[in-house]
Amino acid sequence: MTDHEALADSYQTLRRDLHRHPEPAWCEFYTTTRLIAELESRAVDEVRYGPDIHVPDTRRNVPDSETLAEWRERARAAGASEDVLAELGEGFTGAVAVVDRGEGPTVALRVDIDALPIREADDDTHQPAAAGFRSTNEGYMHACGHDAHATIGMGVLDRLLDSEFEGRFVLIFQPAEETIAGGKSIAASDVLDGVDALLAAHIGLDHPSGEIVAGIDGFLAVRQFRAAFSGESAHAGARPEAGDNAVQSMAAAIQNLYAIPRHSAGATRVNTGRVGGGTATNIVPESAFLDGEVRGETTALMEYMWEHAERVLDGAATMYDCGIDVDLLGDAPSARSDRTLAGVVADVARNTVGVDRVFDRDTLGGSEDATYLMNRVDETGGRAAYVGVGTDHPGGHHTPTFDVRESDIRVAIDVLAGAASAVFAGRVDDG
Amino acid sequence: MTDHEALADSYQTLRRDLHRHPEPAWCEFYTTTRLIAELESRAVDEVRYGPDIHVPDTRRNVPDSETLAEWRERARAAGASEDVLAELGEGFTGAVAVVDRGEGPTVALRVDIDALPIREADDDTHQPAAAGFRSTNEGYMHACGHDAHATIGMGVLDRLLDSEFEGRFVLIFQPAEETIAGGKSIAASDVLDGVDALLAAHIGLDHPSGEIVAGIDGFLAVRQFRAAFSGESAHAGARPEAGDNAVQSMAAAIQNLYAIPRHSAGATRVNTGRVGGGTATNIVPESAFLDGEVRGETTALMEYMWEHAERVLDGAATMYDCGIDVDLLGDAPSARSDRTLAGVVADVARNTVGVDRVFDRDTLGGSEDATYLMNRVDETGGRAAYVGVGTDHPGGHHTPTFDVRESDIRVAIDVLAGAASAVFAGRVDDG
Amino acid sequence: MTDHEALADSYQTLRRDLHRHPEPAWCEFYTTTRLIAELESRAVDEVRYGPDIHVPDTRRNVPDSETLAEWRERARAAGASEDVLAELGEGFTGAVAVVDRGEGPTVALRVDIDALPIREADDDTHQPAAAGFRSTNEGYMHACGHDAHATIGMGVLDRLLDSEFEGRFVLIFQPAEETIAGGKSIAASDVLDGVDALLAAHIGLDHPSGEIVAGIDGFLAVRQFRAAFSGESAHAGARPEAGDNAVQSMAAAIQNLYAIPRHSAGATRVNTGRVGGGTATNIVPESAFLDGEVRGETTALMEYMWEHAERVLDGAATMYDCGIDVDLLGDAPSARSDRTLAGVVADVARNTVGVDRVFDRDTLGGSEDATYLMNRVDETGGRAAYVGVGTDHPGGHHTPTFDVRESDIRVAIDVLAGAASAVFAGRVDDG
Amino acid sequence: MTDHEALADSYQTLRRDLHRHPEPAWCEFYTTTRLIAELESRAVDEVRYGPDIHVPDTRRNVPDSETLAEWRERARAAGASEDVLAELGEGFTGAVAVVDRGEGPTVALRVDIDALPIREADDDTHQPAAAGFRSTNEGYMHACGHDAHATIGMGVLDRLLDSEFEGRFVLIFQPAEETIAGGKSIAASDVLDGVDALLAAHIGLDHPSGEIVAGIDGFLAVRQFRAAFSGESAHAGARPEAGDNAVQSMAAAIQNLYAIPRHSAGATRVNTGRVGGGTATNIVPESAFLDGEVRGETTALMEYMWEHAERVLDGAATMYDCGIDVDLLGDAPSARSDRTLAGVVADVARNTVGVDRVFDRDTLGGSEDATYLMNRVDETGGRAAYVGVGTDHPGGHHTPTFDVRESDIRVAIDVLAGAASAVFAGRVDDG
Repeated sequence: MTDHEALADSYQTLRRDLHRHPEPAWCEFYTTTRLIAELESRAVDEVRYGPDIHVPDTRRNVPDSETLAEWRERARAAGASEDVLAELGEGFTGAVAVVDRGEGPTVALRVDIDALPIREADDDTHQPAAAGFRSTNEGYMHACGHDAHATIGMGVLDRLLDSEFEGRFVLIFQPAEETIAGGKSIAASDVLDGVDALLAAHIGLDHPSGEIVAGIDGFLAVRQFRAAFSGESAHAGARPEAGDNAVQSMAAAIQNLYAIPRHSAGATRVNTGRVGGGTATNIVPESAFLDGEVRGETTALMEYMWEHAERVLDGAATMYDCGIDVDLLGDAPSARSDRTLAGVVADVARNTVGVDRVFDRDTLGGSEDATYLMNRVDETGGRAAYVGVGTDHPGGHHTPTFDVRESDIRVAIDVLAGAASAVFAGRVDDG
Repeated sequence: MTDHEALADSYQTLRRDLHRHPEPAWCEFYTTTRLIAELESRAVDEVRYGPDIHVPDTRRNVPDSETLAEWRERARAAGASEDVLAELGEGFTGAVAVVDRGEGPTVALRVDIDALPIREADDDTHQPAAAGFRSTNEGYMHACGHDAHATIGMGVLDRLLDSEFEGRFVLIFQPAEETIAGGKSIAASDVLDGVDALLAAHIGLDHPSGEIVAGIDGFLAVRQFRAAFSGESAHAGARPEAGDNAVQSMAAAIQNLYAIPRHSAGATRVNTGRVGGGTATNIVPESAFLDGEVRGETTALMEYMWEHAERVLDGAATMYDCGIDVDLLGDAPSARSDRTLAGVVADVARNTVGVDRVFDRDTLGGSEDATYLMNRVDETGGRAAYVGVGTDHPGGHHTPTFDVRESDIRVAIDVLAGAASAVFAGRVDDG
Repeated sequence: MTDHEALADSYQTLRRDLHRHPEPAWCEFYTTTRLIAELESRAVDEVRYGPDIHVPDTRRNVPDSETLAEWRERARAAGASEDVLAELGEGFTGAVAVVDRGEGPTVALRVDIDALPIREADDDTHQPAAAGFRSTNEGYMHACGHDAHATIGMGVLDRLLDSEFEGRFVLIFQPAEETIAGGKSIAASDVLDGVDALLAAHIGLDHPSGEIVAGIDGFLAVRQFRAAFSGESAHAGARPEAGDNAVQSMAAAIQNLYAIPRHSAGATRVNTGRVGGGTATNIVPESAFLDGEVRGETTALMEYMWEHAERVLDGAATMYDCGIDVDLLGDAPSARSDRTLAGVVADVARNTVGVDRVFDRDTLGGSEDATYLMNRVDETGGRAAYVGVGTDHPGGHHTPTFDVRESDIRVAIDVLAGAASAVFAGRVDDG
Repeated sequence: MTDHEALADSYQTLRRDLHRHPEPAWCEFYTTTRLIAELESRAVDEVRYGPDIHVPDTRRNVPDSETLAEWRERARAAGASEDVLAELGEGFTGAVAVVDRGEGPTVALRVDIDALPIREADDDTHQPAAAGFRSTNEGYMHACGHDAHATIGMGVLDRLLDSEFEGRFVLIFQPAEETIAGGKSIAASDVLDGVDALLAAHIGLDHPSGEIVAGIDGFLAVRQFRAAFSGESAHAGARPEAGDNAVQSMAAAIQNLYAIPRHSAGATRVNTGRVGGGTATNIVPESAFLDGEVRGETTALMEYMWEHAERVLDGAATMYDCGIDVDLLGDAPSARSDRTLAGVVADVARNTVGVDRVFDRDTLGGSEDATYLMNRVDETGGRAAYVGVGTDHPGGHHTPTFDVRESDIRVAIDVLAGAASAVFAGRVDDG
């Protein structure tokens, strides 16, 4: 067994352990403690976690205490460190490692770590099931590759620790990306202070193994919300007039949210992806909710949608004399990859074994809260690029049969570590 | 020719002249001058008309000056008296005659005089066309029998003038019933002061010739309104976001107006009977309107609908950032016929030649602003009954082939004059 | 202790035991076995239960096997007879007892036995909580008095067994009234063959203790349904056009269901009391449902609503290219109490101790599937009356604090047994 | 006066005469006869008009005979040639001139000639009013510069007639652009047979005087339609259930048309720009219509919208048991300017006096049925470019104060004649 293969084995072990323990947003207790243990076994200068890397008020959509407690308990049962768990408190998950090698650029890498509420496939054509590392948290699954992302982060760290460079390397394991709820909090903290170049990465995205997208653009700015309508119930046969019908308000809102006018300045989106209300056929429903989102090709377009959506929600509540409560669940701005930094990534990728094809840019079409971090770095004079790493994934993202080709983790490590090294070597300023 | 037949002939002449000159609400210039001329040829003590019998602020839905001028001009061309036209001013149409015979009850009869914007049938199976008294105001028609009603009023007056009675008789020719816009104004004036018994009458109502309904109930209270939405126009291709779409507001309002919850206390109604908006397919519409109405089996039920409708209209405007202007077009409360007075009518009817069947009560199912007058009399201690006089009408009310059997005018005169006489004779108090 | 009081005690025991074991529609396993045990301890000629008293295809809205199994298990744990449970099979709950005393009229009494999915109040102001017979099936409750109804049935049986009469008495314990799902099945069986007079009874209905309504009318015919929309999911940001949005279909359906035109022939109702759809904010929802109902003052009016509702549902599915599946959950026709039989009840009630006030009729305003049984008897030449027995109930029907005054159970027994006796004595034919 | 100025004078005269006689789509009778008279005074080889240059079945949205007759009458009164009017028949307006100089490329120029139903400003700040050439067809106006376009066409013809070239020049005066109804018909005829290069031009488009756009892209494909709903009327108070409410269908359609999901492949649009229905507040409306349009950045996107729109319209009709009739009013595909031909235009423009700034491309954001002609040429192997000629226009397009700076007509003639000459000279093949 070569050194390289041994290394690869340890990454496979890590990835599969994380895959076995998928945890939803803000509940990544096991994942965080596991990653911290890894970091503490390495020669990093600083490992940060807990409230220290967050700004509490900017955390969105944190589950209630009961849910957090339940996941903490699962993590404990899976062997999570009690001391670390205590620090993570009420969902202050995620971790940051810093390697400080004196004067030179500061390069950051951001990977995300949370999983999805999807039941993983259990038949033998699904590799994690066949190879024995299927989710042990039934109903939850790493169906978007964040287990691979965390592993890639650890691999890049190792590669840099083994290399010569001058400057600072900041590795960020971000929680709560799936609910676009964690990026804002990390971006608001001091974690990104002084970062000159930020790399973020995602595996798959409909690119097969061998393809690299050097700098993804086209992140749709997004805002997700819950609108809760509250009226009055009444017997639908005996006293229909006594009710204030929250479901009628909800339906009027749905119809008119989708009907918000399109915008000539670019793409917009709206969806009411989850709705519900009422208790029984014969009761005028006193409560109803809709979980919705608006998006825009730019943040301004998303705000245009949001302003209109607020009017629709207000109007719908007014119509049926219902109260309305709108909670923001998560949001993310739009962002663009810096073309110079992306150029460096592309150059590195073209010289990486296992890469067949390099795209300078591609469009995401979805949303990502890495954009909070990218914009923060951009605003303070740094550069950010969001790198796509192709992988042959059998099922689509967010489906029960999603999986990654594990050898692509190594490709990702090579490209990202190479790009970081190039920045340390001053290649961005040459570009 | 017997006297009776000669009399009948003069009524036929009057009815047919009115039928030939149908005029819409508040525009009954010819009709009013013609009726005043008739009254002034009779031994009545007082003939009142013009602003004297109205309370200006309570007149609803008066056409604009241009429309009024146009109808005044038509009346002039048809031979209306210049002096009377001058008094009628800006649509203060209608007339009142008073016969005062000293001590005794005051009995009032209310008939209505306006026509409808319907084009009259012109084939020979339609009697007015065949006999040469079809509408000369093309596009307008006496399609609800108010020409007959006015004639009946004149006939009852003649019968009473020919009879002995002690008391006061007040004959009211009310304008603007079809738009339920005139009753409120008359009721608010002093015309009904001191009235002990009010009779109102309608011909037809799906009862054939020979049937009398002594006291109709079940008037639906109604409120009619125009809601005008005002937004901003924009090019629908180039700048859809720049518009505030009044047609979207209007559509949301329509959907939710019909969806106002039913009421357990009785029947309600809602309709948006006439709507419009916008200018061209490629322009975001900046204006739209809906002419609607709400009704209720009681005035309270109508008010329930109205309150909810106002919320719907507000909410719909809010949704698309449109302004909204709601104008009341007309309204009428619910009312009930006084059972005692109806009993007197029924007794008289049972002894009237040409009457085969007498109903104590029946339900209207529609609305009528005679209810303003009925309630006014009721509130001041008097009694009111709304009498239905059957007639074989070939087409339905408000259709191009509506007509009345003219001999039923005589039946109506007999019943109503008989009932008035009975009240003068003190029969109500005996009842 | 007098005999009478001892008897009362045994009824209190029965009522409280049933109250302690509330079971939802078609799951009344404990209740049925308990009642059968009671019946078998009495001198009845026949006790029937299981598929024998049902017509399988006419049972509506039967829970799935898993749910049935769960409730069977609870019943077993509470001491239900294994043999009877075996007979009841897949929810063939309910029971019928027959007392046959030869020639004479056949009188039937129908009481219902199921409970509601409501969590019972647990504070001491709620008598069942204070006196220790609160629901032991948490989340379920006898919140509509069917525990009392079943007890009343047993009391009437005892009273008749103790009396002299000639004819047949049929006592029906009907399941699944709350979901208006059981009446049709019982009515379709042979249970009602030859019934001359059917009495059904309900306690409370906003009448205080001391009041009896001899014959309730105004049952709204009702049909309850689930409409399930099925479309295609898609990522709401990346591929909104790829979805067929079931929630948009559902919302269009809701808006237009409530907007079905009112009917001049009488009261109608519509409600979408429970709705839901979708999975996550960022997914175009592929499925949605609405549980709704339509009602009418007559069965024809309900059918008018239903026809229109079907069109709305079809149209809403068409709009978004969704499939639609409509399942009937339950229904009940309208019905009227027979005035002659109600007269007999009224006479008996006026002579019953504890009755202060007797109403000949009152209007229900809701729905009841006793109407299936009433109409069946009516169609075969018999008479049916639905009797209301007042009780001071602290909370409203279907609320967590509903309760009955137990002494009113005795009043109900007296009135109903008295009425049955009067029918046996030939009083209906005299009426 | 120099020759050039004299020439300019004759164009001013033509432009102002056309401005004085604005005519809507398919009614350009005066305009066509005037242009034909001009053509026949020049040395062209062929002048074509009438059905000869159309394919009847492809003409969209032709007014009714009465309207056509009215405009024919106005044209006659303004001095139009009887012989030509006879040829133009039922709105076969427009004209084509051909100059044939033997072997060489065929170059076509398309200009449009119709006006808009807009009342022209009449104050002195509006140049046409001040200078005495305001519209004499009150309520109609050349508010989009087609008067200038026609003049430009004549100027380009003159310039080419004065020049040496080998090949064929085809000048097309297209009717009915404003309703996107005429392009399809011309494109379907043989007029474009053998065309190697097609130039189309538009003045203004928010570019000031001195700017040229060599090849406009971003035409939105469009389809305009009228959906007419037909139901049954009924009295809204007495028989609401008897109606099939066309306005309810229309409102449901409006709401759900705007709610058609956005498309990830590019921009889409939808508008219901003009709607109406019903007759009176108290009548359930039996008819309603909506004039709408869908657009797409590509023809496929427009077709996506159209397919969905058809489902919405069907569903809305189904909901209220209404009939629906959908008529296409006009449509136009998307198109792109050929980059090579646009390059030639740009080169010429850069060397044209009065041109300050040249854009290679710009986006229209609206729709144009020149795209039918452009695509036809493209499909048969030719090239097409849509050229924008800036002008300082005081009011926006389609507003009462729109006007063009007349000296820009000369600039347009120079650029377009120059570009045509360059094509004849073979410059496209060099490009």
